[in-house]
Amino acid sequence: MADVLILHPGEMGSSIGQALVYKGHRPLWISEGRSESTRSRARKSSMYSHETLEAGLADVEIVISVCPPEYAIDVADQVLELGFDGLYCDANAIAPTTARVIAEKFGDSYVDGGIIGPPLYRHGTTRLYVSGNSATRMVKLFAGSALDTRLVEGDSVAASALKMCYAAYTKGTSAMLLAIRSLAQAHGISSALRSEWELSQPRLWDRSEGSGPGTTRKAWRFAPEMREISKTFEDAGLPAGFHEAAADVYERMAFLKDSEPVSTHKITKILRKD
Amino acid sequence: MADVLILHPGEMGSSIGQALVYKGHRPLWISEGRSESTRSRARKSSMYSHETLEAGLADVEIVISVCPPEYAIDVADQVLELGFDGLYCDANAIAPTTARVIAEKFGDSYVDGGIIGPPLYRHGTTRLYVSGNSATRMVKLFAGSALDTRLVEGDSVAASALKMCYAAYTKGTSAMLLAIRSLAQAHGISSALRSEWELSQPRLWDRSEGSGPGTTRKAWRFAPEMREISKTFEDAGLPAGFHEAAADVYERMAFLKDSEPVSTHKITKILRKD
Repeated sequence: MADVLILHPGEMGSSIGQALVYKGHRPLWISEGRSESTRSRARKSSMYSHETLEAGLADVEIVISVCPPEYAIDVADQVLELGFDGLYCDANAIAPTTARVIAEKFGDSYVDGGIIGPPLYRHGTTRLYVSGNSATRMVKLFAGSALDTRLVEGDSVAASALKMCYAAYTKGTSAMLLAIRSLAQAHGISSALRSEWELSQPRLWDRSEGSGPGTTRKAWRFAPEMREISKTFEDAGLPAGFHEAAADVYERMAFLKDSEPVSTHKITKILRKD
Repeated sequence: MADVLILHPGEMGSSIGQALVYKGHRPLWISEGRSESTRSRARKSSMYSHETLEAGLADVEIVISVCPPEYAIDVADQVLELGFDGLYCDANAIAPTTARVIAEKFGDSYVDGGIIGPPLYRHGTTRLYVSGNSATRMVKLFAGSALDTRLVEGDSVAASALKMCYAAYTKGTSAMLLAIRSLAQAHGISSALRSEWELSQPRLWDRSEGSGPGTTRKAWRFAPEMREISKTFEDAGLPAGFHEAAADVYERMAFLKDSEPVSTHKITKILRKD
């Protein structure tokens, strides 16, 4: 079984590592420079560790990059600089043009990936979409695991394009909802909006109530993802403002990274900087 | 029964006129300068006509402005210049700060309004929200009619704020969906997006299929409404980009005003100016 290096195991990455452990693989992580929470998560997932990236790369055929989108190119460069010549899968939420920069570095060893769904606590919740000439190797790697891995038809960065389109709606509308709740509060009409939504937009108030707590601790990483999405729209000649605004919303919440989940009511005040 | 002047009866305005006819009122419209389609609609609704605004105003106690948002201030000024001293209800989709400009012109004779729902083809579909010191007069006017008229608690332009918050989501997400469909098509991944949405976002593909035909003929007036919404966000210190982008989407479709409904597939190409 191929050994796999995951850079770097956050919640999603460590759950993917766990899925590989169950399949009999020996996923690795690199401990050097990682936070205590990353170390703790990686240990719990039964992944193996190497201290340095150099030692880790010497031991594996496949690298999967799962990191905040703004680090995707840096992580790729670090791997390349150490002479790695195995398969490199970038599974981050990045614009197709960003993915293409990485794809060009790795050539046919590049697999473009996009993850849709939550960390893998059980089968069936989460898909890894892959594209590019070597994408079937990733499908084989995860075959029978909890991570439903699917080829996307299209060009070599089609998986990133799909991820951008998908997150554009889910995370984009969550940010919009929070901004609307904040606007309603600014005008003192929250209860009228709630009544109207309950009449004509079933479940929307409840969804907005969930958006605050649900994004509190993720907003810091949603913000750069929204920037990648706005770049994707702009690159295609489409309006970029939806996701520039969404990035702005999440940036205003980014300081809540280590907070307990915060109610939408409180988030609406934070967004207006009351 | 108070006579009411409706400026100017589009689909919504003429359906409101019809609701007043059923209640025994004598709603008026002004024929001077109106298009043939407005004339035809107004006639069908059994409204009475005067040729000039001056003649119409001399005959009524209440004016209701129902027009594209960019004309709201002009219509108010025309009415004021003719010395009208009755009740003036602006029921347009305008920013609270725009509504406040009109409110200050009319003082206590101003009623702020916001319409939510489609033209009144039957009871129960559509609400007129009203706010301001004289708002109860509008509630009385429509009591028992097909137009469900409700007071909004809050300041004198609370009804406009509510309308902005409401349309921000419905029309904002429709525009976002069309832009996402266009992006997916640009990357050749529409069928992958459809499969993923059908798996994890039930009804979203169908909604996006409806957004193109459903907005084809309205986009020209949605665009300035989106600008009013973005102004509302900006005035409250919130990100304006969501609805700047939505305005941009609808502006690209505005030339379809008199077209038959166009499929979302075709709209996605129009948005990218293929």
